[in-house]
Amino acid sequence: MSTAGQVIRCRAAVAWESGKPLSIEEVEVAPPQKDEVRIKILFTSLCHTDVYFWDAKGQNPLFPRILGHEAGGIVESVGEGVTDLKPGDHVLPIFTGECKECPHCLSEESNICDLLRINTDRGEMINDGKSRFSINGKPIYHFLGTSTFSEYTVVHVGQVAKINPEAPLDKVCVLSCGMSTGFGATVNVAKPKKGQSVAIFGLGAVGLAAAEGARVSGASRIIGVDLNPSRFDQAKKFGVTEFVNPKDYNKPVREVIVEMTGGGVDRSVECTGSIQAMISAFECVHDGWGVAVLVGVPNKDDAFKTHPVNLLNEKTVKGAFFGNYKPRSDIPAVVEKYMNKELELDKFITHTVPFSEINKAFELMLAGEGLRCVIRMDE
Amino acid sequence: MSTAGQVIRCRAAVAWESGKPLSIEEVEVAPPQKDEVRIKILFTSLCHTDVYFWDAKGQNPLFPRILGHEAGGIVESVGEGVTDLKPGDHVLPIFTGECKECPHCLSEESNICDLLRINTDRGEMINDGKSRFSINGKPIYHFLGTSTFSEYTVVHVGQVAKINPEAPLDKVCVLSCGMSTGFGATVNVAKPKKGQSVAIFGLGAVGLAAAEGARVSGASRIIGVDLNPSRFDQAKKFGVTEFVNPKDYNKPVREVIVEMTGGGVDRSVECTGSIQAMISAFECVHDGWGVAVLVGVPNKDDAFKTHPVNLLNEKTVKGAFFGNYKPRSDIPAVVEKYMNKELELDKFITHTVPFSEINKAFELMLAGEGLRCVIRMDE
Ligand SMILES: NC(=O)c1ccc[n+]([C@@H]2O[C@H](COP(=O)([O-])OP(=O)(O)OC[C@H]3O[C@@H](n4cnc5c(N)ncnc54)[C@H](O)[C@@H]3O)[C@@H](O)[C@H]2O)c1
Ligand SMILES: NC(=O)c1ccc[n+]([C@@H]2O[C@H](COP(=O)([O-])OP(=O)(O)OC[C@H]3O[C@@H](n4cnc5c(N)ncnc54)[C@H](O)[C@@H]3O)[C@@H](O)[C@H]2O)c1
Ligand SMILES: [Zn+2]
Ligand SMILES: [Zn+2]
Ligand SMILES: [Zn+2]
Ligand SMILES: [Zn+2]
Repeated sequence: MSTAGQVIRCRAAVAWESGKPLSIEEVEVAPPQKDEVRIKILFTSLCHTDVYFWDAKGQNPLFPRILGHEAGGIVESVGEGVTDLKPGDHVLPIFTGECKECPHCLSEESNICDLLRINTDRGEMINDGKSRFSINGKPIYHFLGTSTFSEYTVVHVGQVAKINPEAPLDKVCVLSCGMSTGFGATVNVAKPKKGQSVAIFGLGAVGLAAAEGARVSGASRIIGVDLNPSRFDQAKKFGVTEFVNPKDYNKPVREVIVEMTGGGVDRSVECTGSIQAMISAFECVHDGWGVAVLVGVPNKDDAFKTHPVNLLNEKTVKGAFFGNYKPRSDIPAVVEKYMNKELELDKFITHTVPFSEINKAFELMLAGEGLRCVIRMDE
Repeated sequence: MSTAGQVIRCRAAVAWESGKPLSIEEVEVAPPQKDEVRIKILFTSLCHTDVYFWDAKGQNPLFPRILGHEAGGIVESVGEGVTDLKPGDHVLPIFTGECKECPHCLSEESNICDLLRINTDRGEMINDGKSRFSINGKPIYHFLGTSTFSEYTVVHVGQVAKINPEAPLDKVCVLSCGMSTGFGATVNVAKPKKGQSVAIFGLGAVGLAAAEGARVSGASRIIGVDLNPSRFDQAKKFGVTEFVNPKDYNKPVREVIVEMTGGGVDRSVECTGSIQAMISAFECVHDGWGVAVLVGVPNKDDAFKTHPVNLLNEKTVKGAFFGNYKPRSDIPAVVEKYMNKELELDKFITHTVPFSEINKAFELMLAGEGLRCVIRMDE
């Protein structure tokens, strides 16, 4: 029996207050409106951004809220005007969208859509400024337009990537955010040539995905930089060939890398969020051709500061958002890369838990254990 | 009768002390040694860099010295090992070289040769650490390896571009430095697409050459920014379509440009040397795809400082040295662009003087009059 057009009652993990364990509740999920899609989520994984907005330190807290933005699922029904998706399609919801009409979407270079770019403050759908989630009629806020910690969720069609139905959703769900962010930063923006050297600052999930991008690009040396030596063992499995802990040296890490490489690395990718690492990542690239790509989200008051002669010496610095992928146009092809075994994803998934134990995923991340914990909605 | 292998006695303009008028003297020019070329200079023009090292403020002064680095001439004789140039070849000496063997010369991207990159402190030839110029046996220092304010000069073969003998040397001599620097910064590094908007900071000779690059690239809007309104009239002849004097506004120039363009320019090229202009040039480009190129030479203690979110929003900043041209490999093709009437040069040449009046060229530049003054060696 079709549920299209009906309110669906299902389980969702609700964050009632900042920093308190999520609680699994029965929620009502309204039907999708114009340009919206209702998705049955099968797998969702936990990313730092979820933890950050759950913790809500230094933010305008928005609760109760359904978090979650890395996921894979199947379209249950579509709203008015949705023509390129239909019930049964396999999809990844994405935290940033693609309207296909604004100057950014029409540009070959940008992926920061004017209509649907990431908005962490918004708790409602853009169509009517209301939530599709409620408990006994009381609205529950959305998160990033995705809210994947629910058996069913409603997402703007511009934030839905339709993928190969053969792709295992329990694996490719991690391409919704972190893995694409790191991998794309290397392959789409830093673009190392075969045989070049790449430094990766920060060996969390995003940094290791950037290292995977360097491996796939045929980099000759992949130098991992992290302040936490416990990251190094794991990173070996990700093709990182050398390690630098800035704490082990009494000179700036920039100098260490310039010496190791006889002039600087060809490319660097910063995946830490630390402004010091951003500056070092730029200054350690080779003059004449070096390119540094910044991925980490900085603090509000940080300043990127360097001597302009570094720029005149023909070094480049640029940033990358979501690996410069356009979610609808580009992510299906990244899934194909996984299907063709060009890109490895399984090694990023270090834990899985049933939905009822979603708080365990938070505990693992807070303890810095593993990379991605996949949550099985179907238990 | 051939002069090859002989010392040549000829006229040169010698700077005996900082800031004092040059004096035309008879000098001895030794024959070219290994990998060197002796050139009969026919035309040379004056660039700010000559004036800067003549003025020698805040420098380790190096006098007596023969300045000059924008020029065109004919090979008189070649030293041992020089195979790709012969007497009679038409050439432009260039202040930065190309050895064709170092990692920079082998890279597709860099033009800052390890062996022959610009060195403003060196007053001798690299082969033997000695000067080829003397007066009554007393050596006179070289400048930038070119010293074109002399009827004959000796230059390392890596600093000599062989050009089309049909090209008028009194015009293409300005491609030795300033025009190539600005033009190349736009066409090789900023690379605006047809129909895009370009902001040019600084409307001196280098900035106007950058504007010429924007015109040739088919830019739809060329916005000129300068603190000196007297620059605007001239700039109209160079395809600059709009003008912004930061002094006319009580908000940052970045904001003015973002408002004028509905989000920012597609490309910007900074040709001022002012750190404030460098930062504004970066911050006024459009998010998603904007590229800023820095050309101006900053002060020693300047810091390029911006919020890293500007980078994360997918703006790029890079520098360009000598328009990213490799002097021997690329400059001959720029001369051809002039021959094909793709690139205009004549409008840059606002004055000409005979060699005997070279100090007049200095006076014009110090008064900020005109763009390039070409000095005719042959009177
Ligand atoms: N631009 C985007 O689209 C996007 C998307 C997702 C995540 N991110 C950002 O990417 C960054 C990395 O995410 P993650 O999930 O891998 O984080 P993570 O916390 O798992 O990993 C960050 C690593 O950086 C290391 N580190 C911190 N400061 C350092 C320094 N100064 N030098 C060297 N190493 C240092 C830490 O020890 C840690 O191992 C975060 O800033 C995150 O906000 C950006
Ligand atoms: N990178 C290279 O290879 C290379 C080669 C040659 C020259 N240069 C540099 O290029 C720059 C320009 O050279 P030029 O010969 O055209 O100089 P110029 O002095 O003729 O012109 C500079 C212009 O910039 C303007 N200006 C100064 N500060 C400004 C500000 N804050 N905002 C807006 N305009 C400002 C001035 O009014 C002037 O009109 C210099 O810094 C020079 O050293 C670089
Ligand atoms: Zn859009
Ligand atoms: Zn995420
Ligand atoms: Zn070289
Ligand atoms: Zn010059």
